[in-house]
Amino acid sequence: MHLILSKKIKRCIIAKQQNETVEKIVSLAKRRGFVFQSSEIYGGLNGCWDYGPLGVELLKNIKEEWWKAMTYREDIEGLDAAILMHPRVWEASGHVENFTDPMIDCKQCKARFRVDTLSELISDKNKEKALKEFDPNILSLEGSISEKFEKILDDQNNASKLLEFVSCPQCGNKNTFTQPRKFNLMFKTFLGPVDDAANVIYLRPETAQGIFVNFLNVQNSSRQKLPFGIAQIGKAFRNEINTKNFLFRTREFEQMEMQYFCKPGTDTKHYEEWKERRIEWFKSLGMTPTKLRFHDHPKDKLAHYAKNATDIEYEFPFGWGEIEGIHNRTDFDLSRHQEYSGKSQQYFDDETKEKFIPYIIETSAGASRSFMAFLIDAYYEEEVKGEMRSVLRFHPKLAPIKAAILPLVNKDGMPEIARKIEADLRPFLRIFYDDKGAIGRRYRRMDEVGTPFCITVDTQTLQDQTVTARERDSMEQIRISIDKLLNYLLEKLR
Amino acid sequence: MHLILSKKIKRCIIAKQQNETVEKIVSLAKRRGFVFQSSEIYGGLNGCWDYGPLGVELLKNIKEEWWKAMTYREDIEGLDAAILMHPRVWEASGHVENFTDPMIDCKQCKARFRVDTLSELISDKNKEKALKEFDPNILSLEGSISEKFEKILDDQNNASKLLEFVSCPQCGNKNTFTQPRKFNLMFKTFLGPVDDAANVIYLRPETAQGIFVNFLNVQNSSRQKLPFGIAQIGKAFRNEINTKNFLFRTREFEQMEMQYFCKPGTDTKHYEEWKERRIEWFKSLGMTPTKLRFHDHPKDKLAHYAKNATDIEYEFPFGWGEIEGIHNRTDFDLSRHQEYSGKSQQYFDDETKEKFIPYIIETSAGASRSFMAFLIDAYYEEEVKGEMRSVLRFHPKLAPIKAAILPLVNKDGMPEIARKIEADLRPFLRIFYDDKGAIGRRYRRMDEVGTPFCITVDTQTLQDQTVTARERDSMEQIRISIDKLLNYLLEKLR
Repeated sequence: MHLILSKKIKRCIIAKQQNETVEKIVSLAKRRGFVFQSSEIYGGLNGCWDYGPLGVELLKNIKEEWWKAMTYREDIEGLDAAILMHPRVWEASGHVENFTDPMIDCKQCKARFRVDTLSELISDKNKEKALKEFDPNILSLEGSISEKFEKILDDQNNASKLLEFVSCPQCGNKNTFTQPRKFNLMFKTFLGPVDDAANVIYLRPETAQGIFVNFLNVQNSSRQKLPFGIAQIGKAFRNEINTKNFLFRTREFEQMEMQYFCKPGTDTKHYEEWKERRIEWFKSLGMTPTKLRFHDHPKDKLAHYAKNATDIEYEFPFGWGEIEGIHNRTDFDLSRHQEYSGKSQQYFDDETKEKFIPYIIETSAGASRSFMAFLIDAYYEEEVKGEMRSVLRFHPKLAPIKAAILPLVNKDGMPEIARKIEADLRPFLRIFYDDKGAIGRRYRRMDEVGTPFCITVDTQTLQDQTVTARERDSMEQIRISIDKLLNYLLEKLR
Repeated sequence: MHLILSKKIKRCIIAKQQNETVEKIVSLAKRRGFVFQSSEIYGGLNGCWDYGPLGVELLKNIKEEWWKAMTYREDIEGLDAAILMHPRVWEASGHVENFTDPMIDCKQCKARFRVDTLSELISDKNKEKALKEFDPNILSLEGSISEKFEKILDDQNNASKLLEFVSCPQCGNKNTFTQPRKFNLMFKTFLGPVDDAANVIYLRPETAQGIFVNFLNVQNSSRQKLPFGIAQIGKAFRNEINTKNFLFRTREFEQMEMQYFCKPGTDTKHYEEWKERRIEWFKSLGMTPTKLRFHDHPKDKLAHYAKNATDIEYEFPFGWGEIEGIHNRTDFDLSRHQEYSGKSQQYFDDETKEKFIPYIIETSAGASRSFMAFLIDAYYEEEVKGEMRSVLRFHPKLAPIKAAILPLVNKDGMPEIARKIEADLRPFLRIFYDDKGAIGRRYRRMDEVGTPFCITVDTQTLQDQTVTARERDSMEQIRISIDKLLNYLLEKLR
């Protein structure tokens, strides 16, 4: 008993620390202009976020590095497909039928709940009571109360029976739930002036389908031969009932997807290659290697279209979470679009004179989730000369501001020189000019937003036209001549 | 009579030529991978387009140049706000009430029409007939039949009376129209699992409001003082009934907007400055100056929020069309958001200790429309040595492919050298490698997509390690040593 308690307390402390880290990041993100709650002055819109002045730069830099890594290759073409697509696309993809969550309504108070997350809203005591009424034998089985409860809810045959014994978490009445019904997670809207079923279209829940339906358009116009890929960055939307963990589960988000078309039989080789390439990409931009891992999907839990699937996971303060999925989608997608559109999606192999539907290896990264992982991964608090500094150790390529120009004091000709340096660097780099407050405080402000270099104009500058360049992580300073500054920075930032 | 006929014929010929130009561009855009119809294999989705491999690069380059011009300045911050916003935003902005078109339904055949474009669907003869029944005196007034017809439809008091005498363009029945009703052009959807009026949200019809509601978030986090601006690039959606002219009027489009916050009294000065800066931006990227003009809105036709407004227009083949709007929006937007949110939107001036709501100067460019204007403006057909070549004379900064690497023949060691050059350039530039077909044909293919430089490896290369660099517009070729090639290109492309 004692042991259990202390374990519980330990878990609570860890959870608290983890929450504190996320809370600190959310607070820093707002204070320094990385991320704001969407429509904040109206109380916010749940599951939507706005990227502020520094956030938009970090996000742009992540997307740009991805775009370069993925499309500055001979075998990959870019694409930017519309968010609104023909509704048949989502029938072919299976989203109309399958992209659903089971929902129940309370007939008494009209509240609506997702069946698979109901457990979170109910106390252990009430869960135990319901299980006892459902089947007293279950209580003696192994596992926690919640695990047993969720397992039965998971089973479609047993779920409605168990629900008879569960009290509504909102009004407290028992046996008031409707049968579970499927709720589609796609946002729907109406094209044209008439709001009826015939005009329903959807906000895309993933960017992948825009690539699939353009396979032959891209192949014909670019004259690519297999294997080749199509890469796309764009927004997608999911009408999530439960949004959570800051940018991790949101209703509006951005994806960076690449679909690699290849000959059946070569698919496993390409799948393995892309797995390696993609995890290396995160590492190459400074993400802590020990906080990255693959989570391979077991064969019996694969999505209906997949032959193999893995997640690249990052260890967030709240646990491991997917930041990218790599899937061997076989010929499922193109076969379905061939069937639903009546248009051949076959590829003609010039050399072997064969016609076939290519296999697809998908690498699907969340831009918003990568943003959050890079932000959290870069965050450090450390003691410097008896003071705490918080610092974002961004890879220089990702840092929103590349260099700050700081006149030591705002007189004696220093601001004039500093302004001249600013004007010379600005066409090439995102620069920040700051002449307010003590120099130590200005350094800390730049550390906190991850600026890799602070350039200070001081008394010596007036004599010999050199400045100090302070490096963010080591805090070391070197003196460098003003006329060598641009090349020095460009080299360091490359 | 003779004169009128010949004028009509002339107009027809010009219209035909103009249509041909647009048709040629649409066809080139599809064939070479600039723009595809969205969801084409399903018959397309009206008013939506997908950007192919070359289109996505052109669009990215336009957006990147805009972003640099607008945010690589001390007085402008970037932002990327969500597409989904709190519905009160659109009440405050006036869109729920005013962003409407008048519509009528035919009670007989259920067809729906926009009143203000009905005239396009009806023959002159039928218009004349209807006008005669409405009021025979009108026919003797000045102006064409269409002008008279449209003028009466424009008048809300007279419109329904005139509509009694108009036959439905679809079923031909007379006096079957409903009263005109307002139809809102915002796409609506439902947040959360219940599709009812309480959960309606909208796809933003403009990006501007995302900036307005973040005014204080951005100002506080960036510590900017007036005057300063906030810049944003993003998608917006309008449920247009009549889409037209390729990318000109679409349902999904991208905007590049900057809102400049300033002290009342300084607004006219900033308005005039931004007008000049913005038209210069188009010219600086090579757009033909004589095809650009301002169209100032007359005082009596200003939008309800505007003190001054002008369009930057480009002369498309179908006539002058707006590609950017510059507006003095006064304190309308922030005042409305203050009123609707109950949150002060005042700015505190440190120096004068005054509190006030800033004025806003807006520069609102269409990224999609700019794309179309740059594409059309760059298109030339010219005779070269008895053959026609079509060429896209893009500014080098906008060109989707910066250089093509071409081995003269695919043997004798040439491909090896060409591949080496390709590998050296690829990390820095978007490169295309082509070894298929006669060299003249390969040049033409690159001209047609606007590649500024073709680098050819030939027999002489094998001897002295030089290549030819062919410039797209002049078609002149120079010989250059391989080790100087990267710097040569980077300099030319800057």
